[in-house]
Amino acid sequence: MSRFWSSVVHRLTPYIPGEQVDIPGLVKLNTNENPYGPSPRALSAMRDAAGGELRKYPDPNGSALKDALAASHGLLRDQVFVGNSSDEVLAHVFQALLNHELPLLSPDISYSFYPTYCSLYGIRHRAVPLNADFEIDVDDYDQPCGAIILANPNAPTGHALSLSRIEALLLAHPEQVVVIDEAYVDFGAESAVTLVGRHDNLLVVQTFSKSRSLAGLRVGFALGHADLIAGLERVKNSFNCYPLGQVALAGAVAAVEDRVYFEQTRAAIIASREQLAAALVELGFQVLPSKANFLFVRHPGHDAAGLAAGLRERAILVRHFRQPRIDQFLRISIGTDADCGKLVAALRHLLG
Amino acid sequence: MSRFWSSVVHRLTPYIPGEQVDIPGLVKLNTNENPYGPSPRALSAMRDAAGGELRKYPDPNGSALKDALAASHGLLRDQVFVGNSSDEVLAHVFQALLNHELPLLSPDISYSFYPTYCSLYGIRHRAVPLNADFEIDVDDYDQPCGAIILANPNAPTGHALSLSRIEALLLAHPEQVVVIDEAYVDFGAESAVTLVGRHDNLLVVQTFSKSRSLAGLRVGFALGHADLIAGLERVKNSFNCYPLGQVALAGAVAAVEDRVYFEQTRAAIIASREQLAAALVELGFQVLPSKANFLFVRHPGHDAAGLAAGLRERAILVRHFRQPRIDQFLRISIGTDADCGKLVAALRHLLG
Repeated sequence: MSRFWSSVVHRLTPYIPGEQVDIPGLVKLNTNENPYGPSPRALSAMRDAAGGELRKYPDPNGSALKDALAASHGLLRDQVFVGNSSDEVLAHVFQALLNHELPLLSPDISYSFYPTYCSLYGIRHRAVPLNADFEIDVDDYDQPCGAIILANPNAPTGHALSLSRIEALLLAHPEQVVVIDEAYVDFGAESAVTLVGRHDNLLVVQTFSKSRSLAGLRVGFALGHADLIAGLERVKNSFNCYPLGQVALAGAVAAVEDRVYFEQTRAAIIASREQLAAALVELGFQVLPSKANFLFVRHPGHDAAGLAAGLRERAILVRHFRQPRIDQFLRISIGTDADCGKLVAALRHLLG
Repeated sequence: MSRFWSSVVHRLTPYIPGEQVDIPGLVKLNTNENPYGPSPRALSAMRDAAGGELRKYPDPNGSALKDALAASHGLLRDQVFVGNSSDEVLAHVFQALLNHELPLLSPDISYSFYPTYCSLYGIRHRAVPLNADFEIDVDDYDQPCGAIILANPNAPTGHALSLSRIEALLLAHPEQVVVIDEAYVDFGAESAVTLVGRHDNLLVVQTFSKSRSLAGLRVGFALGHADLIAGLERVKNSFNCYPLGQVALAGAVAAVEDRVYFEQTRAAIIASREQLAAALVELGFQVLPSKANFLFVRHPGHDAAGLAAGLRERAILVRHFRQPRIDQFLRISIGTDADCGKLVAALRHLLG
């Protein structure tokens, strides 16, 4: 508390940063990081960008990256917005597009930052419960609202909506922006990007942190109708004209262009996920169907917090949420097959 | 205009990005970039950081950079805030610390983003005129206000306040935050950082874009009382938990540590500034005293816009502001001595 703070600060909860664990041989399956490194072409492009030209400001529009993303998704440059991580893109989305008189709708169990952004920008918010199978049912969103945001696949459940259900949602809300947060879409779900040309109320948000394995670089983007992008640009340009530095732009462009590496690594992660899911089912876990790079699982005979603590003692980190409805689940990121093997062996031991 | 925009977007002016000029042999003295490249140690650290570890999220606290800055300025880690450019840091400062019932005061001629942030966050703002010599007089700020922000040296004038005048301002406003934006301070002004320990209402903002020659990397920071920093952290962590990527953190830490390169290059720029100022005086210009890496000049016999256009035809860019009170001035960034020599030769020709 300080008398110097603006009133908004008082309604924000102080963030407790995740514990930094530094254990030799740690198996880190708690933050949905990609077990494979970034594209070697992306790394090479970044090293080339670390030179004397850094004395100059970057392109404020990030045009090279917008063009690479537009080409990759069959869109035009003015349908692309880029930012310093999808968190930053989402923050601009909340401020620019989701603050209306009627409440914003989002699932009760989803990315924890959505209510945080609402608090930051004074946006009315209503949580819509997932159904009994922990799935989003788009019919539940048939209520008065100012806008809608969904993660697809949803986190931490991994559940994916079909394209036809998303299109039904878009058609049911022609006067509301519908944001689909596709952080995990490349691991097997259907992207709504193909609907951008047909629906002016659709905004798709993606990130380089997961399927492009560049969490440490901080690059995200949004795709949608040029009018939505223009609103985002106005807010972004009043906040920080040059959010993406030259090194990030260079690395991201090369990562988009290296399709082969992208396809290889995401296929490997999908294969590992299916293999791990089968092994966990064999151990007696209920495994929710996942199209993401993580599994959401519970064991009928074992407390989730206890399992997480037991794994931790064996230098394996998974994620447990102390949150209503899901406090008996664990979210397990997909690692290498070796990492997944260590996890299964440790669980077998713990389940005794 | 779009029915999907939040109301705030409608009151924001669309930003027109600076023209991208690509002329061979261009002398670019219009954006206050550093003519020398970044520290070789910083470049090397960035290349080393462009590796497989980028698959992981960066340290959300940027602790390595906070520690380097704290050590460099004789402060503690919790007195340091870091962000993706000083523009981003300033945006968080406006939202977290400058939104009060009484208006924010800032000079009528200063960094153009201050009123932009006020518009973005709905902050009441009052512009305080510079005096007849285009200087900030701190006595003019002796009026009811919610907070104060000044650039020191001010831009685009280059005028610097003494430390004693800044301390007088702090003492006159014990209940208001006073932000000193020191983007240009390393080129000869006195930093207010030495006052941080004595005044809990002081926040100093600095950047790596000018004296550290890393405009392309996007790193800025703020120094102040831990309570002010805590307010900034709350807003930052509700906006984007991980603003600084690993490459930016690595480069910035090494740039702080390379004191020798920093001292050499800023001394070279200061020497070039004094030499250029003398040459411009000889050509009949009025040159405002500058402690920044630019000069603010006018010629009694020549229209500023005309001179800027004439220089442009000779592939030399300087900055002209179409703005009341200063539309007969040119802002000229300090380049290498060779660049400054070309400018003087071109001006001599234009002045005929």
